[in-house]
Amino acid sequence: MALVPAAALERFIHQVLTAWGMPEAAARDSTAVMMAADLRGIDSHGISMLDIYERWKQVGKFRVGALPRVVLDRPVLAVIDGGGGLGHHPSRLATEMAIAKARAMGLAAVSVRNSHHYGAAGVYAWQMAEAGLIGISCSGVHNAATVPTFARVPMFGTNPWAFAAPAGRNPPFVLDMATSTVAIGKLKIASFAGKPVPEGWALDAEGRPVTDSAAAYAQPRVTPLGGSREQGSHKGYGLAAMVEILSTQLSGATYTPLRPKEQAPDDVGHFFLAIDPAAFRPEGGFEADMDALIDALHGCPPADPARPVLVHGDPERAAEAERRRDGIPVPAALRASLTEVARRAGVPVPWSA
Amino acid sequence: MALVPAAALERFIHQVLTAWGMPEAAARDSTAVMMAADLRGIDSHGISMLDIYERWKQVGKFRVGALPRVVLDRPVLAVIDGGGGLGHHPSRLATEMAIAKARAMGLAAVSVRNSHHYGAAGVYAWQMAEAGLIGISCSGVHNAATVPTFARVPMFGTNPWAFAAPAGRNPPFVLDMATSTVAIGKLKIASFAGKPVPEGWALDAEGRPVTDSAAAYAQPRVTPLGGSREQGSHKGYGLAAMVEILSTQLSGATYTPLRPKEQAPDDVGHFFLAIDPAAFRPEGGFEADMDALIDALHGCPPADPARPVLVHGDPERAAEAERRRDGIPVPAALRASLTEVARRAGVPVPWSA
Repeated sequence: MALVPAAALERFIHQVLTAWGMPEAAARDSTAVMMAADLRGIDSHGISMLDIYERWKQVGKFRVGALPRVVLDRPVLAVIDGGGGLGHHPSRLATEMAIAKARAMGLAAVSVRNSHHYGAAGVYAWQMAEAGLIGISCSGVHNAATVPTFARVPMFGTNPWAFAAPAGRNPPFVLDMATSTVAIGKLKIASFAGKPVPEGWALDAEGRPVTDSAAAYAQPRVTPLGGSREQGSHKGYGLAAMVEILSTQLSGATYTPLRPKEQAPDDVGHFFLAIDPAAFRPEGGFEADMDALIDALHGCPPADPARPVLVHGDPERAAEAERRRDGIPVPAALRASLTEVARRAGVPVPWSA
Repeated sequence: MALVPAAALERFIHQVLTAWGMPEAAARDSTAVMMAADLRGIDSHGISMLDIYERWKQVGKFRVGALPRVVLDRPVLAVIDGGGGLGHHPSRLATEMAIAKARAMGLAAVSVRNSHHYGAAGVYAWQMAEAGLIGISCSGVHNAATVPTFARVPMFGTNPWAFAAPAGRNPPFVLDMATSTVAIGKLKIASFAGKPVPEGWALDAEGRPVTDSAAAYAQPRVTPLGGSREQGSHKGYGLAAMVEILSTQLSGATYTPLRPKEQAPDDVGHFFLAIDPAAFRPEGGFEADMDALIDALHGCPPADPARPVLVHGDPERAAEAERRRDGIPVPAALRASLTEVARRAGVPVPWSA
């Protein structure tokens, strides 16, 4: 596995996006958000998306030349039309607007419609927490994969939800999760390894649990968080619907299962909410209580002494320290695919052939 | 099982609370919120709490004579001090303030601290949806029962989360969930029935899964939604922490595991957020898209034709129609306990002895 220095990978992504004709503001934000995922170990949402974005671009799922437009701007809310482009740039703009408005008013929400894949939800929530605010971000998805409890067809994407909150001495708390039990990438990995998947991750066409990973990955139908009715999948289904409502119906984007086949681009929606703790409590009170919470969780006796209790954001920070030092792992199959992407874009690759 | 007419049960609850010395405004709201739970089939949060409230009152966990005070009031947010009383009255006040501010500004949040048990989270979110707004409500809990992933001691309550959204032709979408895999009441029911509980619901003192329901209920240590690491319990753990942060650390309430033993009352926190869809989209657009979403979910092919796909809020509405007509079921053991509560309060019971 090649380890590619972060700066070289960053330059590579930016060059490819620019070669595709993406405007500089959009290329800069897409690169930054993809790199944030790669640095934090969220491999499914960084450089591994580049060949997928190329395919989506070719079939018109998003417009590479798009620029967002703020269509509504009020003291504590805004609505952004993404122009049919990738989601990173309008989402960075939404995050910055939410931060500025929340600092002025105490809280603010920004909706984005007519957008597409926005990368890792946690990147935006994290940015709000780094600005001293509680941050929430969620997104619809252009394809349905999650099957509601009692159903046999997918009606939601893996609909990600992220929540972040700043602390004082400690780095921020950052939850970044799909509302499905597992990401589709986990079916892919098991299928490549020829291993079965645990019952409760995926369903067959009849809505029954499936453990054959090749079958599960061939046509992904994942369960909502909980896995089965008995284990609470109706809650995960409810959370997937909540993400859909905040992202799609609130912004006026297109609900994927009802999208006409001929519609292009896909018109995905996102939602961003920022809350300023300093508007609710005397300065520093929230951060001190966050430290006490995080310390209590870290100090909590583990079931297995070899596996300490983690706080959300810990694994991502550990990955970032390692990857900034050693570089970002890019598996051979991905390098091969990206080498073709680079060739078509007329851009040099940051690894030796 | 006696079926008690709603009006008679409502009068009974109000009389008991009044006899305890609860101020009229508080007694009225506690009665209304408990009745909303009982009518909607959320039996764990209605009349079944009355004997528990009596015990908590006696040991000083909350102050029966308390009245809330708005300690901060800004255009899009407010903070309420519950005065150490039960949570229903400050939470109704918070919900009403969130609704009024969101109608004026587009969205608003209200924090409550120094409060206690507020009943079913969904009641407040539902009220916001009936006012035409997206509603979110969540609460901390005065005792810890949920064990973080990899841990062996509880660090969170069952930390409920509710999300509601209005539709047009359809009644509102209402998700009301504990962030644990199951409510503690489910361990109680299995224990009374002498039945084992499924692996993934509860843990023993070493943090290992337990299926003996008597052992599981004797000292409840429930899993976060997901049940095990493999099935995504780190997500449920993250959601429990999110609810804690929004309810406790944002309001400045007391984080239960760090509460000094001698502290009384318990100082529980809640959070309320209202979003006005009409501030984001032309009037009616959101509601029409919500109808399309709800219709699509109801029309979704089920795995088992005998079990149609439900939308969140459906079971509660079905229960309400039935219970308004037939009365509210009160089991014999609960009637016996409440008869003693009524005797001590000097209030007649709404059933024959």
